[in-house]
Amino acid sequence: MRIEVEQAAEALRQANDVLVLSHKSPDGDTLGSAAALCTALQGMGKRVRFACSDPVAPKYENLFARVKPDVFDPKFIVAVDIADTQLLGKETEQYQHCIDLAVDHHMSHKEYAKMTYLDGTAASTTQIVYELLRAMGVFVDKQLANCIYTGLCTDTGCFRYANTSAKALRVAADLIDAGADAAEINRVMFDTKSRARLAVERMAMESIAFYENGRFDVMEITEEMMAASGAQESDIEGLAALPRQVEGVLIAATMRERKEGGYKISVRATPPYDASAICARFGGGGHKGAAGCVIDGEKEAVREQLAQAVGAYFRSMGI
Amino acid sequence: MRIEVEQAAEALRQANDVLVLSHKSPDGDTLGSAAALCTALQGMGKRVRFACSDPVAPKYENLFARVKPDVFDPKFIVAVDIADTQLLGKETEQYQHCIDLAVDHHMSHKEYAKMTYLDGTAASTTQIVYELLRAMGVFVDKQLANCIYTGLCTDTGCFRYANTSAKALRVAADLIDAGADAAEINRVMFDTKSRARLAVERMAMESIAFYENGRFDVMEITEEMMAASGAQESDIEGLAALPRQVEGVLIAATMRERKEGGYKISVRATPPYDASAICARFGGGGHKGAAGCVIDGEKEAVREQLAQAVGAYFRSMGI
Repeated sequence: MRIEVEQAAEALRQANDVLVLSHKSPDGDTLGSAAALCTALQGMGKRVRFACSDPVAPKYENLFARVKPDVFDPKFIVAVDIADTQLLGKETEQYQHCIDLAVDHHMSHKEYAKMTYLDGTAASTTQIVYELLRAMGVFVDKQLANCIYTGLCTDTGCFRYANTSAKALRVAADLIDAGADAAEINRVMFDTKSRARLAVERMAMESIAFYENGRFDVMEITEEMMAASGAQESDIEGLAALPRQVEGVLIAATMRERKEGGYKISVRATPPYDASAICARFGGGGHKGAAGCVIDGEKEAVREQLAQAVGAYFRSMGI
Repeated sequence: MRIEVEQAAEALRQANDVLVLSHKSPDGDTLGSAAALCTALQGMGKRVRFACSDPVAPKYENLFARVKPDVFDPKFIVAVDIADTQLLGKETEQYQHCIDLAVDHHMSHKEYAKMTYLDGTAASTTQIVYELLRAMGVFVDKQLANCIYTGLCTDTGCFRYANTSAKALRVAADLIDAGADAAEINRVMFDTKSRARLAVERMAMESIAFYENGRFDVMEITEEMMAASGAQESDIEGLAALPRQVEGVLIAATMRERKEGGYKISVRATPPYDASAICARFGGGGHKGAAGCVIDGEKEAVREQLAQAVGAYFRSMGI
């Protein structure tokens, strides 16, 4: 059942022994949303605990600074920023059929909860949680403001992407008024690279090759680069955006070598070009701006297939 | 004479044959401010022209899309985002003693104009120009919103830095409501690298060396790298921020080889450490977060002097 903010606020006010779930490979939005809810509900005297299939990265630990560990059998289960129960992961998939309330901003949300409070126009799920906390009469203090701000800035690329609405900016302004440590959060989220990231980024940059008069480029991330740099998966997050940033490039691909063989391909496109049109040729999909697919084969053959597909696409677009 | 927004608005309403000046090596804020004023004043039927000692980079040309060339002897001269007449440059320094109105947000502003409208709390000069246009009764349309947004996003690192006030975010929200192409402007300003930048950045990353258990690092930008990559000065803008982004680094230095010999040093520090304390040892200065100096000598000797100075500074800070 789809519900509105007042009903979601009422359900949370009534709830007790609340379990809050984040999606696997948790990011700033799912964690900021969960931490804000846990903090606010514990502040109302309720028993609350948090669960996620994957560990919380150190840079997000501060969000949970005021959440106390509680032990109980959950009576009310909330899922935040989870578009599909497949994103719960191994540790929490046991709850997939008994989620009471889902709070989410993904247009692609597959309704799985008894009650769903969805706002596809919100830049982040924390932006919705902010509305929810206000509807619940919760005072948004510095700690809550930091949780909400973290989701808002990470999901908008620090207010850079097209999902940055006027409303999102006004919420961010309210959060700064509430004491959010915005500049420090931005520094940690956007201006910090691990040494392994620095090394793998340099090697990946070196691998960039241009095709189609510089309108298409391909970057590689090989197992050898990962080993030589000591990079983990978390170190290469967002790296696929890099080749598209090069001046003159309309479509960019990143080839990530897979342990099981073949390559995971991430394609990025500048409007009006369509990354998903390229990936569809290889059985993949996604959005116009960002799409993905898997291509089996050796490195040079995979590159060649990509270059040919993009060339054919450009011809079809009159380039 | 220091004046307030109403007086500045009245002076501009009365003015005719207006010359608007930007500072040399113009950035998004001085150009966005000038373009907004020129566009608005021409829209009021006034003769207006723009002058700057250096060319306007292609990515900023759109700001002036609606500014028509006018020829006249100026009767009213406005300087925007210019903290000091030394920043006028060769082509416009002739006007240094006859500037009628200065509009600026730099705390370090050296009063040189007949009237000065200064707001040191504004994130950008365009934020002040926005207040000014509203006080003048100008309707802020899409083109004006793009000019104001450009200054606001470039001077705050897309709302990342500590100067991003709640007010700055609320102005940005108003501009999006007014139709500003925020996502496209952000893409051009923050998500575009020239191929030369890509190449010089990679070489510079490769040069990073760590000292003091990874708490201090030094990056080099040599004449050889500039030549090999084909990079111009504009291609290395902001590059000095990179070594400070590495996890664990508290102080970072970038050594830029000078054609005339020696190195221009840019130092960056994470709070509470003080970049200017390092540069002061070499006769330079700046702010706590960012400072500069020049050190003569050969590469290895300069590195060694920097490492020793930072080591001594760390010892004095109890590290």
